[in-house]
Amino acid sequence: MKVTIKLSGHILFPDLTSMPDLKPYVRAIEQLKGRGHCVFIVVGGGEPARHYIKMARENGADESTCDQIGISIANLNAKIFSKALGDLACPFIPKDFDELEKALATGKIVLMGGLQPGQSTNAVAAVLAERSGSELFVNTTTVDGVYSSDPRKNPDAKKYKKVTIAELEKILDSSGVKAGEYDLIDSVALKIIRRSKITTKIIDGRDPMNVLKAVEGKEEGTIVIP
Amino acid sequence: MKVTIKLSGHILFPDLTSMPDLKPYVRAIEQLKGRGHCVFIVVGGGEPARHYIKMARENGADESTCDQIGISIANLNAKIFSKALGDLACPFIPKDFDELEKALATGKIVLMGGLQPGQSTNAVAAVLAERSGSELFVNTTTVDGVYSSDPRKNPDAKKYKKVTIAELEKILDSSGVKAGEYDLIDSVALKIIRRSKITTKIIDGRDPMNVLKAVEGKEEGTIVIP
Amino acid sequence: MKVTIKLSGHILFPDLTSMPDLKPYVRAIEQLKGRGHCVFIVVGGGEPARHYIKMARENGADESTCDQIGISIANLNAKIFSKALGDLACPFIPKDFDELEKALATGKIVLMGGLQPGQSTNAVAAVLAERSGSELFVNTTTVDGVYSSDPRKNPDAKKYKKVTIAELEKILDSSGVKAGEYDLIDSVALKIIRRSKITTKIIDGRDPMNVLKAVEGKEEGTIVIP
Amino acid sequence: MKVTIKLSGHILFPDLTSMPDLKPYVRAIEQLKGRGHCVFIVVGGGEPARHYIKMARENGADESTCDQIGISIANLNAKIFSKALGDLACPFIPKDFDELEKALATGKIVLMGGLQPGQSTNAVAAVLAERSGSELFVNTTTVDGVYSSDPRKNPDAKKYKKVTIAELEKILDSSGVKAGEYDLIDSVALKIIRRSKITTKIIDGRDPMNVLKAVEGKEEGTIVIP
Amino acid sequence: MKVTIKLSGHILFPDLTSMPDLKPYVRAIEQLKGRGHCVFIVVGGGEPARHYIKMARENGADESTCDQIGISIANLNAKIFSKALGDLACPFIPKDFDELEKALATGKIVLMGGLQPGQSTNAVAAVLAERSGSELFVNTTTVDGVYSSDPRKNPDAKKYKKVTIAELEKILDSSGVKAGEYDLIDSVALKIIRRSKITTKIIDGRDPMNVLKAVEGKEEGTIVIP
Amino acid sequence: MKVTIKLSGHILFPDLTSMPDLKPYVRAIEQLKGRGHCVFIVVGGGEPARHYIKMARENGADESTCDQIGISIANLNAKIFSKALGDLACPFIPKDFDELEKALATGKIVLMGGLQPGQSTNAVAAVLAERSGSELFVNTTTVDGVYSSDPRKNPDAKKYKKVTIAELEKILDSSGVKAGEYDLIDSVALKIIRRSKITTKIIDGRDPMNVLKAVEGKEEGTIVIP
Repeated sequence: MKVTIKLSGHILFPDLTSMPDLKPYVRAIEQLKGRGHCVFIVVGGGEPARHYIKMARENGADESTCDQIGISIANLNAKIFSKALGDLACPFIPKDFDELEKALATGKIVLMGGLQPGQSTNAVAAVLAERSGSELFVNTTTVDGVYSSDPRKNPDAKKYKKVTIAELEKILDSSGVKAGEYDLIDSVALKIIRRSKITTKIIDGRDPMNVLKAVEGKEEGTIVIP
Repeated sequence: MKVTIKLSGHILFPDLTSMPDLKPYVRAIEQLKGRGHCVFIVVGGGEPARHYIKMARENGADESTCDQIGISIANLNAKIFSKALGDLACPFIPKDFDELEKALATGKIVLMGGLQPGQSTNAVAAVLAERSGSELFVNTTTVDGVYSSDPRKNPDAKKYKKVTIAELEKILDSSGVKAGEYDLIDSVALKIIRRSKITTKIIDGRDPMNVLKAVEGKEEGTIVIP
Repeated sequence: MKVTIKLSGHILFPDLTSMPDLKPYVRAIEQLKGRGHCVFIVVGGGEPARHYIKMARENGADESTCDQIGISIANLNAKIFSKALGDLACPFIPKDFDELEKALATGKIVLMGGLQPGQSTNAVAAVLAERSGSELFVNTTTVDGVYSSDPRKNPDAKKYKKVTIAELEKILDSSGVKAGEYDLIDSVALKIIRRSKITTKIIDGRDPMNVLKAVEGKEEGTIVIP
Repeated sequence: MKVTIKLSGHILFPDLTSMPDLKPYVRAIEQLKGRGHCVFIVVGGGEPARHYIKMARENGADESTCDQIGISIANLNAKIFSKALGDLACPFIPKDFDELEKALATGKIVLMGGLQPGQSTNAVAAVLAERSGSELFVNTTTVDGVYSSDPRKNPDAKKYKKVTIAELEKILDSSGVKAGEYDLIDSVALKIIRRSKITTKIIDGRDPMNVLKAVEGKEEGTIVIP
Repeated sequence: MKVTIKLSGHILFPDLTSMPDLKPYVRAIEQLKGRGHCVFIVVGGGEPARHYIKMARENGADESTCDQIGISIANLNAKIFSKALGDLACPFIPKDFDELEKALATGKIVLMGGLQPGQSTNAVAAVLAERSGSELFVNTTTVDGVYSSDPRKNPDAKKYKKVTIAELEKILDSSGVKAGEYDLIDSVALKIIRRSKITTKIIDGRDPMNVLKAVEGKEEGTIVIP
Repeated sequence: MKVTIKLSGHILFPDLTSMPDLKPYVRAIEQLKGRGHCVFIVVGGGEPARHYIKMARENGADESTCDQIGISIANLNAKIFSKALGDLACPFIPKDFDELEKALATGKIVLMGGLQPGQSTNAVAAVLAERSGSELFVNTTTVDGVYSSDPRKNPDAKKYKKVTIAELEKILDSSGVKAGEYDLIDSVALKIIRRSKITTKIIDGRDPMNVLKAVEGKEEGTIVIP
């Protein structure tokens, strides 16, 4: 199966000073590859991006330039993860759509960071899923699925096993939680998922094995039906 | 004043076979320049983009590639409009953020089409407004402002003179009209306008003089207060 | 056999408003590939290019910029045709000679539009034939070969089965028909064909099966002997 | 006046081992600039290009790659001539049409070598003349104008003071001298000159002062009337 | 005076978690500009580069890729410093020699990070000094000049006021201190300084005012006479 | 075995006017490939580069621009050698690190010339050895190994069979022979060899068979132990 995975930068690169442990995720991706799946990955910027953006903003950078700096850090994160994957990975990180097409031609795992200001890494992952013809888009977050409200604030929040895109939009609207706010998925990504009918799973990425479960159909997160 | 204007492709390039009349808009932009304003322009893809996208889709192109093709047409439209502006315009159309920075360095009117798949020309215009430090973002549409519901379907729709971004989001949500649906403004553009506090005017672009009025503070459209 | 085919934009994209039917040509190319031939394709700009160039010219663009705009449309046409070919095609359209070398390295069908102002798509196709080491260059037109004069104007025009390049130049000269005028072949292409000794067939491209016939040696057009 | 000058590589870089003396030509260009003219220059490849092409061909390079290598040498020649011009020259040599537009935006003397395989430096110079809006195109050669036949072979060859493009084509045809053969001007360049109505002067470039005379209207060469 | 300044990343970006205070250095550069000097700046990678390189190395990246990652961080640092300088700075960070030439054409303060693996930021700064025609190259370090041995290890180390390049090489050799080891200057930079005869000052960069003193001839560091 | 070979431009392209005979070296590389080795090659600029640099310098080019011109010639030399190798070679010459990664992905013999000003071709070859994961770096010169002093000046110079990098640095220092001076190896290359522990052989490249011997462990030159 062709599958695009958005790996949260906050999970892979959670703080500024310690060395990240990428091995558990590398092993999970290797297993997916070993089982014959065709994998595409977007890596977020995480804490280092947040920090660099703050430095830029404090020195007068406009928000688009801040986005651009965050994208550069996400690209470096993707590069480091590609090195951890070794020969399985396409050796270059595509930085625009033309390069993406060249990367897809290598037949290897294509890793990306970001593309252009104003676009979240969720949206980039949705574009990659669409362009690579992925049947499944797995979105890793730090919660374990879609809830009726933010589960970190409301202990009674109810978790959904399945939602349609229309229902997901209603949930996000009615609960007063705007898309993106707790790092779930944003409206651009939803638009792309809908137009290309890509089955999407929002899962707890803190355990890398959940990615395997999601691809094998055993996940505990939320399925977004396009 | 620094002002970014999104010129609707559907207004400038309304059909597939006739020659567009760009002169009225060229005169409006020349007047803005003559009054000392610093102008940045995004031109949409219009009918030619819609047609080329349809050809690509019917021949098996994925939606991201379709977006990319629409962007290429928008870039050609921007190129043609830049030629109509003559020496006032930056002679190249920036196709990514690095080129945008080189274009801004020329001190001329910078014209753009699109950037990357998944991003509307509205979002590109908001990025350009942000990066150029524009105080005003004028968004031309084929209606004369924001209504409580789609005025083409509902004759009782009430037009707003001023809205906050929060109110605009609520109006778009509650009326069941999703952002973008009647070519108004999308959620990415709104996010950028909010974060950089750019005053935004949604006006009827079918009369080029409305752009001058919007910049001079005499418009009849809707002001979005960031 | 390595073969480069110039597909006339006027045949593939004959008008501005209807959807082109690329399937017959796709099937012809697939059959060539299925028989073990190695195929390289240049797609012309056709009517959409002619229309965009006219829009640019009417708005003050110099002729080189008009060429450039026509090349952009030819590139989009090549992109759409590549999508119709699916996995057989190199996923990117090379836009300069460096990219051409990267495209040739993929081992897939390489599709191009144009390169630089002042160069016809015929010349681009000759360059592609030369660089790819093609033994045969098939040039599709809307007439069925080389005539002693323009067959659309002169009913007595005699059709040639074989010509040398020297004879072809004489025919074009003596008949008062300058190269390129009825979309046959231009002097740059002739120079390249001569220097690299590439057998060239000028055929009626309105029937896609003629391309197969030309490659298999059964064509009815005109052979240019280098 | 805006003027584009094609400087023959065979004049500036006449042999492989000695140092070229560019100063006389530098002084001529400085004088043109000093008199208020706006100058654009294409420098040919000369002997070094001829030698490098021969090396490439002997080692199996196809003719398009040979062209490309000749273009690289012409670009280096243009770079060296730009250094000799110092601050008057645009500091980079544009290698495609996008870069040409950026170079024109600098307001300095733009120098080019070549663009793409299959295109002579004469054709590149015509494109530059067209894109820069030059009123005059001065083409330096090693003969002193257009003759009824090759003056180096036929002592009775008659020199023309003025020719139309149509007459020039007829002269080149009827004399059996194909365009380009004695380094005069080729058919692509003629097509561009005709379509953009650029007055063209073919002069003896062995004396740099002839370039000044040509611009000031005192030349002894041949005027091609577009 | 044209002056190139290498700003140590370890001084500007000294740790991983706090916000750097770039203002004192911005004021120093503004003063230099205000006094009519023409300034070019290279910013090093500092602690963030060191950290990112360590992450890459621990995940299997070869050393050239590590260099490349360090260069990317140095480019981001240069970008942030350029934002702090506002309109005085060239809005893009040149990433290769072609872009450097475009940046120099803007007439603004050009800021760079790094170029290619295997090249220190000292060497990049020397290349920038050479290409920009700088008469002075100011190299900021965390010691106050060149000593007979490492002053941090040997309290009797003697500080030099002036050295020739030959003497500096001998000092570095005889003291067993290899170039670069205490962040002074490396052999590539020395080679460039020698061949282009660029006066070089090695100063304590922890006080930004030392940069002004160095340019005005009042510094306390070490002058390297080329 | 993965092996990177630096082919001296002075050996391959020894003079300005005659045709180089690349066949003996082509046969040596073919044999290496035939024995299953994975080969990467850097070709130097040789006499043509020296001549072009001299022309540039005499016309006012700064030394960095001279370097850049030498790099361009080395790239052409690499291109010509790649043509002589035919299908064994990657069809494009990478000109920066991003392109190098794309070239490595082709699985063919990657050929390079140079990268950036201030970097010798020795240093480029060391970067290529490092990035390609080569176990062996073969450096061809016009002497037959490392001597205690320059063997062309001192007939008593003693040749070393093996040296450590530390010893090699001491030899180069103590003998008053600065790195690079007799085309051996420079300090940047030594730094890269040391950090990545690449076994390096300095051999007499005037006989191409020595390259085979070096790879098979039978060479007569000097081994540098990292």
